[in-house]
Amino acid sequence: MAKINANYRKLKAGYLFPEIGRRVRLFQEQNPQAVVHRLGIGNTTEPLTPTVVAGLREGAERLGSAETYTGYGDEQGEEELRAALARFYERRGVFLDPGEIFVSDGAKPDAGNIQSIFGTENRVAFQDPAYPVYVDTNVIAGRSGEYDSKAGNYSGFVYMPCSQENNFIPVPPDEPVDLIYLCSPNNPTGAVASHRELKKFVDYARANRSVIIFDAAYAEYISDPELPRSIYEVEGARECAIEINSFSKFAGFTGVRLGWSIVPQALVVEDSEPGELNRLWFRRQTTFFNGASNISQKGGLAVLSEKGLAECRELIDFYMENARIIREGLSSLGLTVFGGVNAPYLWLKTPGGLSSWEFFDKLLHETGAVGTPGSGFGPSGEGYFRLSAFGHRGDIKKAVASIKEGLQI
Amino acid sequence: MAKINANYRKLKAGYLFPEIGRRVRLFQEQNPQAVVHRLGIGNTTEPLTPTVVAGLREGAERLGSAETYTGYGDEQGEEELRAALARFYERRGVFLDPGEIFVSDGAKPDAGNIQSIFGTENRVAFQDPAYPVYVDTNVIAGRSGEYDSKAGNYSGFVYMPCSQENNFIPVPPDEPVDLIYLCSPNNPTGAVASHRELKKFVDYARANRSVIIFDAAYAEYISDPELPRSIYEVEGARECAIEINSFSKFAGFTGVRLGWSIVPQALVVEDSEPGELNRLWFRRQTTFFNGASNISQKGGLAVLSEKGLAECRELIDFYMENARIIREGLSSLGLTVFGGVNAPYLWLKTPGGLSSWEFFDKLLHETGAVGTPGSGFGPSGEGYFRLSAFGHRGDIKKAVASIKEGLQI
Repeated sequence: MAKINANYRKLKAGYLFPEIGRRVRLFQEQNPQAVVHRLGIGNTTEPLTPTVVAGLREGAERLGSAETYTGYGDEQGEEELRAALARFYERRGVFLDPGEIFVSDGAKPDAGNIQSIFGTENRVAFQDPAYPVYVDTNVIAGRSGEYDSKAGNYSGFVYMPCSQENNFIPVPPDEPVDLIYLCSPNNPTGAVASHRELKKFVDYARANRSVIIFDAAYAEYISDPELPRSIYEVEGARECAIEINSFSKFAGFTGVRLGWSIVPQALVVEDSEPGELNRLWFRRQTTFFNGASNISQKGGLAVLSEKGLAECRELIDFYMENARIIREGLSSLGLTVFGGVNAPYLWLKTPGGLSSWEFFDKLLHETGAVGTPGSGFGPSGEGYFRLSAFGHRGDIKKAVASIKEGLQI
Repeated sequence: MAKINANYRKLKAGYLFPEIGRRVRLFQEQNPQAVVHRLGIGNTTEPLTPTVVAGLREGAERLGSAETYTGYGDEQGEEELRAALARFYERRGVFLDPGEIFVSDGAKPDAGNIQSIFGTENRVAFQDPAYPVYVDTNVIAGRSGEYDSKAGNYSGFVYMPCSQENNFIPVPPDEPVDLIYLCSPNNPTGAVASHRELKKFVDYARANRSVIIFDAAYAEYISDPELPRSIYEVEGARECAIEINSFSKFAGFTGVRLGWSIVPQALVVEDSEPGELNRLWFRRQTTFFNGASNISQKGGLAVLSEKGLAECRELIDFYMENARIIREGLSSLGLTVFGGVNAPYLWLKTPGGLSSWEFFDKLLHETGAVGTPGSGFGPSGEGYFRLSAFGHRGDIKKAVASIKEGLQI
């Protein structure tokens, strides 16, 4: 008699986005004339750039000719694309062997699957708040105890609170942990870890033989040259960190699906030899995965061309101008807004001590604007609210105008 | 101190294809004039059809315009594609709700990941020989004991030998098992299970509350109208079977990456309610996956159009003509060949009692032809040899001519 993976039953209901949808529908039914302004989505909205579209189109067309058709490629990605990624890292002084780079169908699958090369006995630490995939995939793998609905967390996990006091970048835990998830620029807070802050984690990980899983999916949104865009800019990180990255927010590939992870040859854990973690992820990918779409990979190559990079820079600047508009608009009302400078996310402190959901309702009813309650990302997100810079310019402007006009603070 | 998933250490070295590569390279070094004919690959070689290329190109181009750009879609696939798949099944009398269909990036990831919604305590049965992904992913998940290199199998697993005696379709095990992997048309044997043979498994699974994981990735290669192309053509299968399928061999999407799985609402296991398995796979996919490429999905829609289906039918007929050429050529030498009639794989009994690897060397050295040793797919594959119908027509003809001329039997 087959039995299900009972760890799934531990997961708290993923009610955040369905609940947002329910409340917005109800509001629309009750206020059929009202305009709803969506400022909460984490989805790109602007078209791909011409060079990238040309790359994808060529990727599709070459499959129609006997001379250029290709079927299965290497699971770890086309050599040309991995070499281009290595050159991309070289620009920031990070030297990688293409064999350390694994092309994938996006950062979410990699962020979800990376834990599977580690034993279930590992103790795991998360930033709080955090992208829910890190926590949920570790619950499913069996690394947690039960969910405590009062505390809003899982027993067995270590939470590293991110608050205004620490500029939303935690320090390493004071107890030993084995796996540490870090995301910088951060989703949802928009905070970016400095070189010095990352160094503390690298030192901790090397001292404790822990592994840092570093999600750099928003790295291209960093404009401050002092801020690290790869954890490998920090000395010693190759021995203790895996980096996950993506073309999604970098080039608008949310629907195209393309990402990469870096598992350095130098990475070691308690019971492994150098190179073993790299081979383990290779084995994982060759067993469970069959490579990213060859069309998407041609698109990725186009992104990494000189012209593609320049165009994607403009695309990112466009979204960051959105962020500036939101930030300035809300700040002018006296609201406290974090993030949105080197990251596409803004992290709003709810006014008047409102809970995240109370502010959600207030904002919706007074202005028609929809954001994401911070409490949906973890207990330390309570009292905060996530806004995103993704959206058409006109929609962003209308949303900000509506907030400035209607929000009663 | 982080620890690796020690189950990876149980895996026997995946030496099959590297070892083939090594021996071929050595042969070429020693015989620089010799022509090597590859008949062993499981990779498509013919270009995509015009309708499908147009669909993919349009899928790429629409991302370049603000009006038609799309980012993240539903993890389970676009509604239009799932509806088209439901209509595709209707043609063979199988009625599915689109909510039972989950679009993915291919059959391999689904075949690898599906086990993760079940507990590690489940006892698993495999056809022997079998596609290695089924066995390897269950080893990694921790459902096996150690590998026995003498017996060529893992302790804790149940092997269902496929031999000439049972026409390479096993009967259900006489002990209780919880999960059963079946592949029909089969890789590597090319055998296709009849309605009656599948019914035995469905009856067994319903009686034991086991789950059948049915890999139908080669279903479109069935031309015999009596043979089932979906396990749901068998009464009762919705209560006990998950079906995995793919556009890879159906339409040449090996590099494009698109597949689907069906988890019926009626499917139940020991400790689940109806619908729970469907929701569990939904939760798995929404947590670990972010949808197949939206470009690939447009290609899938083109495949399922009337014109697309007719063109893909021709593509399959082309490969099946290759199969006929190989089959007739080898049979004319007095060799015993199975499969290759309703499947793109041929399963050759090695002559003179040679082991799979002995025949590999003999074939390579006498004819330059390269196939896949059957023993690489499991202990019951010993003494057999897999050939594939994928290849350009000229290459297939040259390979068969070289075998007819050179092979000394």
